[in-house]
Amino acid sequence: MTNFDHLFSSYAIRLNSPTFNRPVDLSNKLKIISFAGGLPDPSVFPVNEIAEISQLVLQTNKTKSLQYSQSEGALSLRENLQVFMKEDGVSINADQLMITTSSKQGLDILSRLFINPNDIVFTEKTTYTGAIQVFKSYAAEICGVPMDGDGIDTEQLERMIKKYVQQRRSIKFIYIIPDFQNPTGITLSLERRKRIIQIAERYNLILIEDSPYRQLRYEGVSQPSLIELDSDRVISINSFSKILAPGFRIGWIAGPKHLIKKAILAKRLIDICAPPLNQCILSEFLKRGSLQSHLKKLISGYKIKRDLMLECLAKDLRCIEGVNWARPHGGMYIWLVLPNFISCKHMLQEATQQGISYIPGNKFDPKETSFNAMRLCFSMQQTDQIVEGITILSKIIKSNIVRNVI
Amino acid sequence: MTNFDHLFSSYAIRLNSPTFNRPVDLSNKLKIISFAGGLPDPSVFPVNEIAEISQLVLQTNKTKSLQYSQSEGALSLRENLQVFMKEDGVSINADQLMITTSSKQGLDILSRLFINPNDIVFTEKTTYTGAIQVFKSYAAEICGVPMDGDGIDTEQLERMIKKYVQQRRSIKFIYIIPDFQNPTGITLSLERRKRIIQIAERYNLILIEDSPYRQLRYEGVSQPSLIELDSDRVISINSFSKILAPGFRIGWIAGPKHLIKKAILAKRLIDICAPPLNQCILSEFLKRGSLQSHLKKLISGYKIKRDLMLECLAKDLRCIEGVNWARPHGGMYIWLVLPNFISCKHMLQEATQQGISYIPGNKFDPKETSFNAMRLCFSMQQTDQIVEGITILSKIIKSNIVRNVI
Repeated sequence: MTNFDHLFSSYAIRLNSPTFNRPVDLSNKLKIISFAGGLPDPSVFPVNEIAEISQLVLQTNKTKSLQYSQSEGALSLRENLQVFMKEDGVSINADQLMITTSSKQGLDILSRLFINPNDIVFTEKTTYTGAIQVFKSYAAEICGVPMDGDGIDTEQLERMIKKYVQQRRSIKFIYIIPDFQNPTGITLSLERRKRIIQIAERYNLILIEDSPYRQLRYEGVSQPSLIELDSDRVISINSFSKILAPGFRIGWIAGPKHLIKKAILAKRLIDICAPPLNQCILSEFLKRGSLQSHLKKLISGYKIKRDLMLECLAKDLRCIEGVNWARPHGGMYIWLVLPNFISCKHMLQEATQQGISYIPGNKFDPKETSFNAMRLCFSMQQTDQIVEGITILSKIIKSNIVRNVI
Repeated sequence: MTNFDHLFSSYAIRLNSPTFNRPVDLSNKLKIISFAGGLPDPSVFPVNEIAEISQLVLQTNKTKSLQYSQSEGALSLRENLQVFMKEDGVSINADQLMITTSSKQGLDILSRLFINPNDIVFTEKTTYTGAIQVFKSYAAEICGVPMDGDGIDTEQLERMIKKYVQQRRSIKFIYIIPDFQNPTGITLSLERRKRIIQIAERYNLILIEDSPYRQLRYEGVSQPSLIELDSDRVISINSFSKILAPGFRIGWIAGPKHLIKKAILAKRLIDICAPPLNQCILSEFLKRGSLQSHLKKLISGYKIKRDLMLECLAKDLRCIEGVNWARPHGGMYIWLVLPNFISCKHMLQEATQQGISYIPGNKFDPKETSFNAMRLCFSMQQTDQIVEGITILSKIIKSNIVRNVI
């Protein structure tokens, strides 16, 4: 085997770090009950309508669906997304939107446009693993800010920014998941939303809002999105993956026109355009109002699963010292915190041997600690599996606590 | 408008260069006859079969087509591509293949993995504009090597490599379009293919083969691909865009297993996976052997267009001093060279005013000169437009030559 290690770029060399290890493939373990991946429930994909629409767009507009398209995305899809965002209180023009090939690509493009090695980016103390990996792939230094039940602690955020400003470090953006945060399930309060915008303004930083779960609310009242509150500074990353299906790999970013213009220049170099066929299908799906009716179904199904998982956890783990979890008002995750002497990373081996998987907390922590917590995804499994899985997992947790306490 | 220029990365700042300007949008000029974009003919897209297959894969396997997939790509598609490559003489395993979201993404990922700012990469003297832009976006120094009718001049290539080695510059790879090269239409001879591999071995460089037109041969005998000749060193970039339809945005790279493994790590950070729906459709299309029968149709149609364009050029421009073009044995382009006092870049304005467009030679030249040539794409326009377009274009060319000679 010829060795090419000497030819690798700094980027490629960084990928040698365990931070970027591929997740363990459990797909051959057929009997596993996975609470790990943030996967939507495939049993509710509206497959008949998607199949019908595919036929329609191919037959009625083969050039639009099968030829190259503009890098910013098909105008029809952008216009339908404008309407979709307008219903959520966000008024923007079509030229403030760019269609991305998945929201992950949105993250990658924004990281490319802003991060030089050693730049500082701020996130919540625990955040989306994918975002941590992307920022680290560009050699950013990630600063995780503590959270409470109202979301990121804005006082600490400002204190930390001040510290880096004094050190003359280059700070680029604040990355926030305001709604049903991944992994904690927490929703950022309105007061904090306003405060975080003030802070971004004061230090002239970009604010990146990543909100793939926003439409999946099971109780309570929606807070205005950050981009609704400040469309001059906020770039919002959005996706069809959680609210419809990941198989399209289509998302979109919205933000100030001159930043979107720059993103379009980059996108042309990356994959020319998001798949036109997929854009045509989604544009028609939106135009018919089918996304709204699909969301209703999703919400009622996921709410049942969330309630069931909360009930199972309460039944098995209530009143155990050091064990707690919050009730997420939406999204797909419950963040289960265990006594600080438990390592969910180590416990995972035992869990998978018993047919259960989850993601240990350290994966969501830029510092790669937070071992005594785990993220449980309730959207993917069916109700029987939730009951069975939480029962087994709770036994494992209790026996680990007992073993450690003794 | 809030200004964020101070927050841009070096990458984003590089995109300010005119090199990355977006192409002029001529789509609102309905009457234009475009020989510019390298677009396949949409009238021959096998839309009925694609629509039928879309239905089938969605109905029979909704999870596989609409859920997330592995970053390396669906195994079924990789296995069908293995067979497809085997028919072309290339024996590789499925783990030497990664599905990309367009071949452009293949280029971007390979550039990321190998290029640090100021690294040297070698290309043919004129080459794919998109490749030039991607390499420059990573701040590579591109060294274009002269060509003749047999392709890149390997003696000059080695001389130039030696020069950079003596200067202790960091050289990463040689990027070659061996079949019906973009823009010149030239095919690399077998002798040169072997020679270029020897050179890459001698200096321990990666060899990147980009061959989107390889299957579109209208005469002569196919030469072995570079990856057939050396699967330990060559990474081949492939695409469905020219041989089926760009609307899927699906391509693949093939190469040494340990390099593909690295590319998969990067791909997971970029868009997680290529669109599963599109992968499922293409896998079924390949499995049925439909790509081979579609290629037969494409080849017979494009051959007629190539012959017609060559005939029109001969009728109008034969025997004019300084005007020449070669007969491409395949692909989609004719490279028309004009007397060196003509700037095809300046002439383009006059041409578009008269309803014709093409791409001026400077766009294919890393040094951004080569003004006295243009690329004419013959695949997209119908036969009537080819006749009309070349007639008008030839008049413009002749009047420009006369004006300059007088």
